[in-house]
Amino acid sequence: MTTASTAPANTSTKIVLGQNQYGKAEVRLVKITRDTDRHQIQDLNVTSQLHGDFTEAHASGDNGRVVPTDTQKNTVYGLARNGVGSIEEFLVNLGEHFTGEFEWITGGRWAAQQFFWDRINDHDHAFSQNKSEVRTAVLEISADGEKNIVSGLEDLTVLKSTGSEFHGFPKDRYTTLKETSDRILATDVTARWRYDAEAIKAGIDFDAVYTSVRQLLLTAFANTHSYALQQTMFEMGKDVLEAHPEIAEIKMSLPNKHHFLVDLEPFGQDNPNEVFFAADRPYGLIEATVTREGTEATHAIWTNIPAFI
Amino acid sequence: MTTASTAPANTSTKIVLGQNQYGKAEVRLVKITRDTDRHQIQDLNVTSQLHGDFTEAHASGDNGRVVPTDTQKNTVYGLARNGVGSIEEFLVNLGEHFTGEFEWITGGRWAAQQFFWDRINDHDHAFSQNKSEVRTAVLEISADGEKNIVSGLEDLTVLKSTGSEFHGFPKDRYTTLKETSDRILATDVTARWRYDAEAIKAGIDFDAVYTSVRQLLLTAFANTHSYALQQTMFEMGKDVLEAHPEIAEIKMSLPNKHHFLVDLEPFGQDNPNEVFFAADRPYGLIEATVTREGTEATHAIWTNIPAFI
Amino acid sequence: MTTASTAPANTSTKIVLGQNQYGKAEVRLVKITRDTDRHQIQDLNVTSQLHGDFTEAHASGDNGRVVPTDTQKNTVYGLARNGVGSIEEFLVNLGEHFTGEFEWITGGRWAAQQFFWDRINDHDHAFSQNKSEVRTAVLEISADGEKNIVSGLEDLTVLKSTGSEFHGFPKDRYTTLKETSDRILATDVTARWRYDAEAIKAGIDFDAVYTSVRQLLLTAFANTHSYALQQTMFEMGKDVLEAHPEIAEIKMSLPNKHHFLVDLEPFGQDNPNEVFFAADRPYGLIEATVTREGTEATHAIWTNIPAFI
Amino acid sequence: MTTASTAPANTSTKIVLGQNQYGKAEVRLVKITRDTDRHQIQDLNVTSQLHGDFTEAHASGDNGRVVPTDTQKNTVYGLARNGVGSIEEFLVNLGEHFTGEFEWITGGRWAAQQFFWDRINDHDHAFSQNKSEVRTAVLEISADGEKNIVSGLEDLTVLKSTGSEFHGFPKDRYTTLKETSDRILATDVTARWRYDAEAIKAGIDFDAVYTSVRQLLLTAFANTHSYALQQTMFEMGKDVLEAHPEIAEIKMSLPNKHHFLVDLEPFGQDNPNEVFFAADRPYGLIEATVTREGTEATHAIWTNIPAFI
Repeated sequence: MTTASTAPANTSTKIVLGQNQYGKAEVRLVKITRDTDRHQIQDLNVTSQLHGDFTEAHASGDNGRVVPTDTQKNTVYGLARNGVGSIEEFLVNLGEHFTGEFEWITGGRWAAQQFFWDRINDHDHAFSQNKSEVRTAVLEISADGEKNIVSGLEDLTVLKSTGSEFHGFPKDRYTTLKETSDRILATDVTARWRYDAEAIKAGIDFDAVYTSVRQLLLTAFANTHSYALQQTMFEMGKDVLEAHPEIAEIKMSLPNKHHFLVDLEPFGQDNPNEVFFAADRPYGLIEATVTREGTEATHAIWTNIPAFI
Repeated sequence: MTTASTAPANTSTKIVLGQNQYGKAEVRLVKITRDTDRHQIQDLNVTSQLHGDFTEAHASGDNGRVVPTDTQKNTVYGLARNGVGSIEEFLVNLGEHFTGEFEWITGGRWAAQQFFWDRINDHDHAFSQNKSEVRTAVLEISADGEKNIVSGLEDLTVLKSTGSEFHGFPKDRYTTLKETSDRILATDVTARWRYDAEAIKAGIDFDAVYTSVRQLLLTAFANTHSYALQQTMFEMGKDVLEAHPEIAEIKMSLPNKHHFLVDLEPFGQDNPNEVFFAADRPYGLIEATVTREGTEATHAIWTNIPAFI
Repeated sequence: MTTASTAPANTSTKIVLGQNQYGKAEVRLVKITRDTDRHQIQDLNVTSQLHGDFTEAHASGDNGRVVPTDTQKNTVYGLARNGVGSIEEFLVNLGEHFTGEFEWITGGRWAAQQFFWDRINDHDHAFSQNKSEVRTAVLEISADGEKNIVSGLEDLTVLKSTGSEFHGFPKDRYTTLKETSDRILATDVTARWRYDAEAIKAGIDFDAVYTSVRQLLLTAFANTHSYALQQTMFEMGKDVLEAHPEIAEIKMSLPNKHHFLVDLEPFGQDNPNEVFFAADRPYGLIEATVTREGTEATHAIWTNIPAFI
Repeated sequence: MTTASTAPANTSTKIVLGQNQYGKAEVRLVKITRDTDRHQIQDLNVTSQLHGDFTEAHASGDNGRVVPTDTQKNTVYGLARNGVGSIEEFLVNLGEHFTGEFEWITGGRWAAQQFFWDRINDHDHAFSQNKSEVRTAVLEISADGEKNIVSGLEDLTVLKSTGSEFHGFPKDRYTTLKETSDRILATDVTARWRYDAEAIKAGIDFDAVYTSVRQLLLTAFANTHSYALQQTMFEMGKDVLEAHPEIAEIKMSLPNKHHFLVDLEPFGQDNPNEVFFAADRPYGLIEATVTREGTEATHAIWTNIPAFI
């Protein structure tokens, strides 16, 4: 098959293994802490991926360095027996275990989702799941031993029924959108914030930061009179960075979940921003990083975190 | 709220906008070509995201540079009227339109999924959807005008019922996995290959390459006697690079979809690799790049392609 | 093609149209009530399906009686302009409209899901979605004009970390399950309750009943010391029927979401009901009707409500 | 809580257990037949639910009659060891096992989905999944020992790019739809056909019927010039019943997957049925039974088959 008559210069180069990782994904762990009759529940989805020199496994199927993904799964459960703590702390335990246990494991990527539960009627051991958002974390240990941590939340759906405008945009032949000074603004918040490496070494109360960031994001969304989702997003990120010096940067990916005003005029009715059609696809997609001046533009950890710019 | 007593050095730095992009995601386009009675169908899911200096929109909600996502959607449909071609060609048309039409649009990211249809009984205008895989493409135009293209496929599910072994792996206290010389090997192939920038300039028959790469991946999966999924994956990538000089590198993400042999012994039955339980989670996750010696380790386009190392 | 040599007796019978219905499914309606600055939001997914004699449309494509599904969608929005009320009331408005407007529409099936929103910081017009459950309702108007209503909830996920046993079950050659006096019990509650037809005529405060039933289900789940999920389910239903004479019967479909105790013994660890693997599939599926003595065994409305016994 | 002042007459009636069933859902079974080097693969998702008198389990948690769902799962695997055959035959094996093994099991409902695989390059043991449709079957054994079987298919997506009209429908104040003599017609076919009970006793080649019905449905969809999806649906069902005397009736549920012609006129372009927007929601939903004159209107098995009229 001929696909290009002008063969590029690299055709004679040797074919080699590039970046790679492997592990066990989506280990579902439920940890009950039952030191007292008042149980605690931690509900996680954990992924472990190892970095190192695995050339032989790829080249010849020699598994001498391939810590089985089954072993990685077992390790998640074994370490959980000693306590989980925050998901960030649990990932650090996992990462230090693998890089400490096997000399050829030079680093890796460990990630977790946390699902929340509320007590039913303040019951000691009965819970209902609170699905309003998912907490996330990713730890990457690089070959030089540095730990980088990105925490986040996803699936937090918010809506403003007024206080959102959109006008002043450029027009061309494909422009049909009408300007508006009052629309519904709705989005599913995915936010991921990277902790400063020095702050990680100094120690961070990850649970407290999570609670605070979540509240700051919600409050900024609610209180910003919006002229563009970009503006709202930037306000959300700025409030987080101002309150949290231990956070180096924050990235957000916000779908603009369109709520179209239904034209009721053919039915002889007005529609003063009361009746909307909530569309599925397509949707706007607004993504940005809010950062501190002087921060590197593309920290290496972001390469391995899906769904983000 | 105080979350860390030792404030890191960057607390006084100015908070600024970092990397960002925005656009319309998942524009569902069905294009019927009906020049003759024998219709052609092209079924796409298109995403357009623009890059440029959008600081004012974020800082103050000034939308003077914000080409509406609605306009981007309209442009997808308007350009499709003139013909789609391969999805890579269509993305190039989109990208050149936006970077040419608006001086402040310095680049962007355009992506597409393509869904396949077969003719029913070789009918002229009746089709059934072939869901066995999805074709993908991403174009990124950088600020210096360079076009980079990553093509791919996803959701291609394959299985070998024998010809797969796994043994010789290291053991530690968490190891319970048994070695095996005969197991089911199954995965959902996600593959993404980056074209050489020079080859793109020289011209590529993207449809022909797609057909060829797909066949090479399937054949290598089928024909490799596997000692590790890593080994199979590397063979798949190597065969692609050897046949296609216009491809600079290929990345694959392969879940190891576990099929566990059911223990029938308690029921007084043997099970000579005949009855399996297909598990959902957790699953192995094996990811690698197969590349050419001397290729840069992390090309910038990968930062903005989700779900990949 | 010959598939059975002994043709059954009915082969010569005329082929006719049997039960049928048609309409528009999943009309996404967001209704903002903004009589004051403190907005209210109602977020629904509405399906309208009409019953009547549509033989000609099926036999010859004569659409003289086919009220377009597009018109049904428009009607959802048009009627919403006048206010929604409870989802049950809104469905009654829809049903009365269609059966009143078109003489050949003799009945139909109208259904809705309702999604919940909480205020952010008690804000007047900013909300975050509460995804912990979905409220549902189905109205069926039969050819004799009777209205039957089934209300419900779904996706309410609950878990008890103790207070659940399972033993005393029969054993055969395929039994490997161990008896247990302490396990996790978890399920996603789908409950649907049918209102007594006389009570509907007398008038029901559907919102108040919903709030009450939801609380009764949660409380019974939490407070029942469980020897079987069947027993817990029956208690949940019984408490609802005892408190609500206007409810004729209640059906529940409860997956037994297995949380398997991880065997940590190979790692030299005990596991006193602390570390669990939350499995996806397979799952138990426990379904029952709790009813009042003398109630008909299979009310006609259940035929047309999916996912239920 | 008092929610209705006029209590209906049945408030003092005893609360009892109504219809109920329980079992294990979604048992994922992959069966490899390896009598020769040319392997066969059968990939199923099996659900087993038992009927009988389980009052005590509900009333008091006495599990003396509760064959564990775990045992039901084990039985699926144990019986598969002896061969699967068609999914209908496998369900009959399961049903006869449970009703034969336990005297108090008077019947039940057994269901399966089958996923298809194609050989890669005609390889002996390498396959790729063919996702274009899913085959389904439900067996119900009633208390009198009668076996009823409903077979089907789902997720078969088809589209006609012309040969579909829609006009002549009634208009009212909510009508805005334009009449058309050329539109795209697309749907996801869900079809379920019930076998005649006598034909089941006489023996049916279920695999052959499946292949034939699938082909008849596709051909009728392709070849019918459509004036309404109802008409196409009826033709599809009629062709099946005419060719298959062993089938008593067939039900179909067909979403009308709207493909809206994009208005390109604002961009100065025409659009002669070439560029379409494929919408997600809402969608039309067209459902009907095609049956033989004299067949009972609502056979009992349909009550327990979800998503159907």
